Amino acid sequence: MIQKLIEKIKKTNAPIVVGLDPMMKFIPEHIKQAAFHEQGETLEGAAEAIWQYNKAIVDATFDLIPAVKPQIAMYEQFGIPGLTAFKKTVDYCKEKDLVVIGDVKRGDIGSTSEAYAVGHIGKVQVGSQCYRGFDEDFVTVNPYLGSDGVKPFIAVGKEEKKGIFVLVKTSNPSSGELQDRQIDGRPLYEIVGEQVAAWGAEHMGEDYSYVGAVVGATYPEQGKILRKIMPKTYILVPGYGAQGGKGADLVHFFNEDGLGAIVNSSRGIIAAYQQEKYARFGEQNFADASRQAVVDMIEDIGGALAAR
Amino acid sequence: MIQKLIEKIKKTNAPIVVGLDPMMKFIPEHIKQAAFHEQGETLEGAAEAIWQYNKAIVDATFDLIPAVKPQIAMYEQFGIPGLTAFKKTVDYCKEKDLVVIGDVKRGDIGSTSEAYAVGHIGKVQVGSQCYRGFDEDFVTVNPYLGSDGVKPFIAVGKEEKKGIFVLVKTSNPSSGELQDRQIDGRPLYEIVGEQVAAWGAEHMGEDYSYVGAVVGATYPEQGKILRKIMPKTYILVPGYGAQGGKGADLVHFFNEDGLGAIVNSSRGIIAAYQQEKYARFGEQNFADASRQAVVDMIEDIGGALAAR
Repeated sequence: MIQKLIEKIKKTNAPIVVGLDPMMKFIPEHIKQAAFHEQGETLEGAAEAIWQYNKAIVDATFDLIPAVKPQIAMYEQFGIPGLTAFKKTVDYCKEKDLVVIGDVKRGDIGSTSEAYAVGHIGKVQVGSQCYRGFDEDFVTVNPYLGSDGVKPFIAVGKEEKKGIFVLVKTSNPSSGELQDRQIDGRPLYEIVGEQVAAWGAEHMGEDYSYVGAVVGATYPEQGKILRKIMPKTYILVPGYGAQGGKGADLVHFFNEDGLGAIVNSSRGIIAAYQQEKYARFGEQNFADASRQAVVDMIEDIGGALAAR
Repeated sequence: MIQKLIEKIKKTNAPIVVGLDPMMKFIPEHIKQAAFHEQGETLEGAAEAIWQYNKAIVDATFDLIPAVKPQIAMYEQFGIPGLTAFKKTVDYCKEKDLVVIGDVKRGDIGSTSEAYAVGHIGKVQVGSQCYRGFDEDFVTVNPYLGSDGVKPFIAVGKEEKKGIFVLVKTSNPSSGELQDRQIDGRPLYEIVGEQVAAWGAEHMGEDYSYVGAVVGATYPEQGKILRKIMPKTYILVPGYGAQGGKGADLVHFFNEDGLGAIVNSSRGIIAAYQQEKYARFGEQNFADASRQAVVDMIEDIGGALAAR
């Protein structure tokens, strides 16, 4: 699946991923009203609005992009109906041949991480049958519990030719509280980065590993260092756009081959119509605004990479 | 809810929580067969088996215990049907007046943690209506992203009079890889413990905070230190029984008042019938074996506390 991701990035010339994080305030009124008309102002109604919103954005952008990253929390908040919309979104994106990165940030003790791995990137045994619960291509994993919590994901990933992105240096303002703590003169995120590189050596594709890392666009200097520590690791870079990261900040996350990083934008794409820059599209044409925002993001990052 | 937990612990004289982690290999054959007969060897069949198994154990133990801790991964692995069984279990345990600790180990950037908090311990807005997605009383939270990732849970907890348990020093063998790293001469888990105490000061019950901590029974020396660092923090102690922790190891997790800790046992209770010690009950009477294991666990911990 890392090979598929890389091939799709080369083909689209777009090292980007669209974050499908459908907060209710992003969803256009006409979509919400139609969903509520059909299902009422219920969890099912919210889930229907999310699904219709996602579908329109995917339909408008799938030919331009290699991958999507649905953030499961935005669905989980609506309980079972919300998670059903998550699953429907994963399935639909796979039908459209997109690589799906489930942003689930799971991680637990060994037997429990194994259950998460099985549910999200593997298959679960029921009597003599096997089933796939959510069936993403990649998931994000939290490393706080150490190798025990990460290795079950790698083991399932090996069977399935699927992968993970381990949180190393996250994009949020307080990420430094633990991640930047100095250990023998080096920050914790470097130690995690070294572990990611070591775990990755156990599950390699051709040039890159199936074990990727999450490093926020908001920390370009740290990205530069981590790029060197993890040369064969694909870096998933959140925090572009709304969180403050710019194209020029991102060049150091990439290797010389122009590969090695994939940049996520969520609200910058999916709620583009709410920005002044894309206001001309109007709320009805929100998906066209999203398409234009994808085009602009590809140009921003491509330009920055060409100029380095 | 921390007051309710403490009152129930006092009333039952049982500082314990039963971990409802229904792995398929724990579920008696007759339950699985009945569920598969009804629903087939499907995800729905697995979910039905889990639900019937949980219900029997809850019915056999609810009068002896203050709380349960369903581990969501064990349900999530069966996709939407599995999560539906999780929700059914949460609701049933609340009907039985048990405090429900959702072992979800969520944690993300601010807006995303807010969505998890809303979905698990709060309510979500849909148009003019509000709904509760999963509605546990407490959830476990991963602190790797720092305050941004934890505070939304505290904020929602304040509105709802609900709480969290933050991972500090986990019970698994590799927990030390990051958590024991030395920072200015002190391990990372102590720094997290101090943060938990500080976060807890913002959301206090009477004597204890709504912000608890997870510290593994398998690390009693660390528990002793953390008990002092976090005097008003309730400690959720996993790792008793199957993972190796014993009653005598646990006394230092408690304060002098005999409160301040709640010890989890999962397979030691729910799969008691598979142990030689409880084999006399037989597989058919697995729930009676679970009840006896609860009685024995209460005695083990009570005895250790009385002897200190």
